[in-house]
Amino acid sequence: MIADVLPTVPLTGTRFRVVYLVAAPAAEIEARAKSIAFEQTVEFPEDLLSGWLRDEMPGRIEGIVDAGADARGQRWYRVALTFPDEAAGGDLLQFLNVVFGNVSLQPGVRVLDFELPRALARGPRFGVRGVRERLGVPRRPLASTALKPLGLPVSELALQAYQTALGGIDLIKDDHGLADQGFARFERRVELCAAAVAAANRETGGHGVYAPNVTGGPETVLARARFARDAGAGAVLVSPGLAGYGALRALADDESFRLPILAHPAFTGSFVSAGVGGIDHGLLYGTVLRAAGADVSIFPHSGGRFSFSPAECASIAARCVEPREDLKPALPSPAGGMSVTRVPELKSMYGNDFVALIGGGLHREAPSLVEASRRFVAALSREDA
Amino acid sequence: MIADVLPTVPLTGTRFRVVYLVAAPAAEIEARAKSIAFEQTVEFPEDLLSGWLRDEMPGRIEGIVDAGADARGQRWYRVALTFPDEAAGGDLLQFLNVVFGNVSLQPGVRVLDFELPRALARGPRFGVRGVRERLGVPRRPLASTALKPLGLPVSELALQAYQTALGGIDLIKDDHGLADQGFARFERRVELCAAAVAAANRETGGHGVYAPNVTGGPETVLARARFARDAGAGAVLVSPGLAGYGALRALADDESFRLPILAHPAFTGSFVSAGVGGIDHGLLYGTVLRAAGADVSIFPHSGGRFSFSPAECASIAARCVEPREDLKPALPSPAGGMSVTRVPELKSMYGNDFVALIGGGLHREAPSLVEASRRFVAALSREDA
Repeated sequence: MIADVLPTVPLTGTRFRVVYLVAAPAAEIEARAKSIAFEQTVEFPEDLLSGWLRDEMPGRIEGIVDAGADARGQRWYRVALTFPDEAAGGDLLQFLNVVFGNVSLQPGVRVLDFELPRALARGPRFGVRGVRERLGVPRRPLASTALKPLGLPVSELALQAYQTALGGIDLIKDDHGLADQGFARFERRVELCAAAVAAANRETGGHGVYAPNVTGGPETVLARARFARDAGAGAVLVSPGLAGYGALRALADDESFRLPILAHPAFTGSFVSAGVGGIDHGLLYGTVLRAAGADVSIFPHSGGRFSFSPAECASIAARCVEPREDLKPALPSPAGGMSVTRVPELKSMYGNDFVALIGGGLHREAPSLVEASRRFVAALSREDA
Repeated sequence: MIADVLPTVPLTGTRFRVVYLVAAPAAEIEARAKSIAFEQTVEFPEDLLSGWLRDEMPGRIEGIVDAGADARGQRWYRVALTFPDEAAGGDLLQFLNVVFGNVSLQPGVRVLDFELPRALARGPRFGVRGVRERLGVPRRPLASTALKPLGLPVSELALQAYQTALGGIDLIKDDHGLADQGFARFERRVELCAAAVAAANRETGGHGVYAPNVTGGPETVLARARFARDAGAGAVLVSPGLAGYGALRALADDESFRLPILAHPAFTGSFVSAGVGGIDHGLLYGTVLRAAGADVSIFPHSGGRFSFSPAECASIAARCVEPREDLKPALPSPAGGMSVTRVPELKSMYGNDFVALIGGGLHREAPSLVEASRRFVAALSREDA
């Protein structure tokens, strides 16, 4: 039996809510909900606990609502739990751990929604307005492209950066597969691509920015981000599934960094393709990435090479901007097999506050990448589109 | 059309193999395999490529074998692709990105196996033999426990560390939910728990170690790991799903760090619970974590609170030790709802080279945690068990 020790710090009494979709027979859902509440916090037999360790620290069931049966006859319930803010301790990773750490390994548990503890209620540094101001684009959807394919030497990537900036693309990012390979070393690439975009901006009077892909272990990811900033990059691309959600948050919080951050969904993996488990797409690519500090959240638009449904994409976009806590809104960036002809569809679905991203397909739009970029931006600017 | 630019560095011609399980109708599997090969590398229309960017950089189909139909009649194929070592560029995260970055967002793709590029063919620093030497346990399975529940003050956690070390537990780790919360601040916790284990070792002549949980953004995770080493911790616990696979590899590579690393599976999420997509459990918790530098890989044993099958657990254990590349073997650590009575079952399944981990359940084994620990270690030592 664990003694009823007094907490060493006064508890605020403030708790955050997490809503799960849980599969269980009707007779077992109460016990299943309780097991999640304990699994995600004390992870300890209840009968061996006493006092506040039993009464305050575990998750607490706030409500259970029948959500119907699926095609296989499996019953599902919406389970609202609350956890003490102290369990997360103001740490984003530990918050994610409480929300979904261990139960991510169990079947039939899906995270639908959460509240952020007050200590974590901050989002992107720039948000929609801040990104628009930096890019000098007050109203139309933003245009983005990726420098690719993997394997091109730096000189060719820089040429693409120049051409697309000359054509008016706002956010010119690295392909997310560009790390520090021998064919396109990070530092040289960043220097040349940033300079290429700056040269194009001088010609056009535009405000396009280059966003290099920043990845690597703890020291490397920070060193690359700082190098990028010093070399004139106007934003960075981070894949939190690889570099970590903590790297994203650290860069967004860094007072000496201060660049917009684009998040790429690589290796967020079957948090997505799981039909029943995992984290709701809207919550993951909308809320989680926004809470981790992403100004722009890239995700696969429906109808491209991926399998997100229109409803899931709409949910991601809605989650990027919905008023919640003190988070600035983020820009959704639907991508994956896009083309200029699909711009009207994108605009009708996402309105104006999104980043349209055309990667390899841009090379098909016109013999000249400059002209292709102009057509892309023109399509985004068209009021009747 | 992308010009046939010559590579800026000579290609080695060396390629690494990745084996996927892919769902597709027979008439489409060839095209589907090719789409994965391009998605994971150039991510570019093939007809716009030429030269080595078309012929060398993309994945290449090495073989496609019919793997039968599932219960729903969906046809599956084993697809072996090879990728040029240059695509990963000697970077673990970029290697994972090539293996599963974008296709993790597509349904019906599961990673079954891979070869490591030569530049990434290193595993844990210590491995089975190195960990056994440090812990002074040449033969029997190692004993591990977790300091918990979340919410206990540092003084109580240190008392548990002392008692379990006195009882002979080898690896005394933090609960993976212990970050730097107000009730158990990281630095104070590490100092007291390391001192408590050292005190017990002085009494027993044993070599138990304390492994604090090290988490946080890039700077924090490194600072905490170094603090832990300096304060006398004998190992660390890292959750790569939260802190990042790069943090694990960086610590394993750090010549000034040199402590064994335990990997915890929190938030590796539906890479697991997905029935069809994701990464094979054996590959993820065995090979990937071993390649990322884990000396010990913790995973949910079958029959506990989680849903891994015995076959999956056996596969993880086999992957931890199978001879491959130049990787030292790692220690599998089955956990989750374990008890002393299950030790014989664990031994018959995992042999001697594993870390048995009993967390909250240890408090049930005897009124005294010292005695409970002794019984746990005695059960592991019993030859007839």
